[in-house]
Amino acid sequence: MQIAMIEDKIVPMAELGPAYLDRGLYFGDGIYEALRSYNGKIFAFDEHLQRLSGGLAAVKITGVDIEQIRRRVQKAFDAAAIDNALIYFHITRGSTIRNHVWEPGLKPNFFLTITELPDPPQQKTKGFAVSTYPDLRWKRCNIKSLNLLPNVFALNDAAAKGCAEAILVNEDGLITEGSHSAFLGILDQKLWTTPLTSNILPSITRKFVIQAAKDIKLELTEKSLTPQQAADADELFVAGTTFDIAPVVKFDDKTIGNGTPGKYTKLLINRFISFTV
Amino acid sequence: MQIAMIEDKIVPMAELGPAYLDRGLYFGDGIYEALRSYNGKIFAFDEHLQRLSGGLAAVKITGVDIEQIRRRVQKAFDAAAIDNALIYFHITRGSTIRNHVWEPGLKPNFFLTITELPDPPQQKTKGFAVSTYPDLRWKRCNIKSLNLLPNVFALNDAAAKGCAEAILVNEDGLITEGSHSAFLGILDQKLWTTPLTSNILPSITRKFVIQAAKDIKLELTEKSLTPQQAADADELFVAGTTFDIAPVVKFDDKTIGNGTPGKYTKLLINRFISFTV
Repeated sequence: MQIAMIEDKIVPMAELGPAYLDRGLYFGDGIYEALRSYNGKIFAFDEHLQRLSGGLAAVKITGVDIEQIRRRVQKAFDAAAIDNALIYFHITRGSTIRNHVWEPGLKPNFFLTITELPDPPQQKTKGFAVSTYPDLRWKRCNIKSLNLLPNVFALNDAAAKGCAEAILVNEDGLITEGSHSAFLGILDQKLWTTPLTSNILPSITRKFVIQAAKDIKLELTEKSLTPQQAADADELFVAGTTFDIAPVVKFDDKTIGNGTPGKYTKLLINRFISFTV
Repeated sequence: MQIAMIEDKIVPMAELGPAYLDRGLYFGDGIYEALRSYNGKIFAFDEHLQRLSGGLAAVKITGVDIEQIRRRVQKAFDAAAIDNALIYFHITRGSTIRNHVWEPGLKPNFFLTITELPDPPQQKTKGFAVSTYPDLRWKRCNIKSLNLLPNVFALNDAAAKGCAEAILVNEDGLITEGSHSAFLGILDQKLWTTPLTSNILPSITRKFVIQAAKDIKLELTEKSLTPQQAADADELFVAGTTFDIAPVVKFDDKTIGNGTPGKYTKLLINRFISFTV
């Protein structure tokens, strides 16, 4: 008899809920998104849905109606009634007996959570420390998939060092991005950040930061930094949905600037806030 | 109110089953094993438990009693009463609100399935075709984690080409291993296979194949092959739990040998079978 076992309990295979047979669990075969709201309004909803759509196409998960996803997210957000919320959801290829090769016609699974997100975090005014970690990830980091163990390794290493984010350094000795954020710096009165390739996620917050830089006439240089260049930068910050722009005041053992958020970082934060109201 | 949503249904966070909050699902934060039985006896049970133990240590999942796992697997295997069974199980770090940084004291989740495995498959007598695919995986492939999307990509590409396995080729132009098997070849009357580094899984079947080679006085060379060398090999085969040794008779467009399983491959299969009785 084909059976399953959950902890100590034997369960007939046919009685397993879909969550136990989810390809998201067996293989990380799914795409996720994290959105946030400011004061009761979901920020950059279209941009997130567009990236989701691209991610699903990249992994060939078909049969997802993006407008249905939009309605679900909105319905859940309305039900939660949290003004400043973190909305996480993933779509996996579906539930079935484990097999690397997927069957045609699987029904994708949708799962979402909404939790409170305190805003603004103290991090934004004081900044935080980051530490470097080897970029151990796969070669398609532009896909926001559920294969996140190297990111987990990196952020736990940072946390153990009292840092709020891990900055990933690849085998060529170049910074790619944070474990769950984009990485940016101010050098020579220009905004520096890693170019968009398959090595990093096309961060939506990064996109808005670049718009903010344009608005304040700050020139953009899309080039990867070395850890040494980063340590010597005038200003550093990370950008991501959960903390939008968060100033970095310490990079490994090196204090950045005078140890408080820099001038351009503050200008960018202010400009970014204007996008969210 | 913090809420979750499964498909169209809103569910209070507190009512979610542990499967929905599993770090295995969110991050692929877990270790799996696949064992098989021959004629009612689990093969290489100790070796699999030992590898499991090493994998859990590598990802710092603590609090797992390996002897308890052994008892669970045996109990489930006895209950299933399938002589030639595939036993799959994974252990994840536990269930909790999603956060890259894990909380101390999480209780790991155990999940297992037992299904029938036809033996011997026709593949073993006739051999099968394989195709190459870029090795897109992360830099710790020695850890048998749930981050398997690149493996899924590879095997689906092979399946679409009518091949039974994908052979992964890294950026240096060297073969690492199959999407779910070790890769071996006979060249100049020697057994060639990729050396064990963090780029490949320490395959248990590979270990038994090496023992079988010793037994039949076949010399071992642990060196990575290029696809060209593989295409020109006298014999090729893959090794893994589900098919133990499976002869490869076609490598991309190139027929290997005379298109049937080679002499040494057959000797190794026979020797391997003697380990399983």
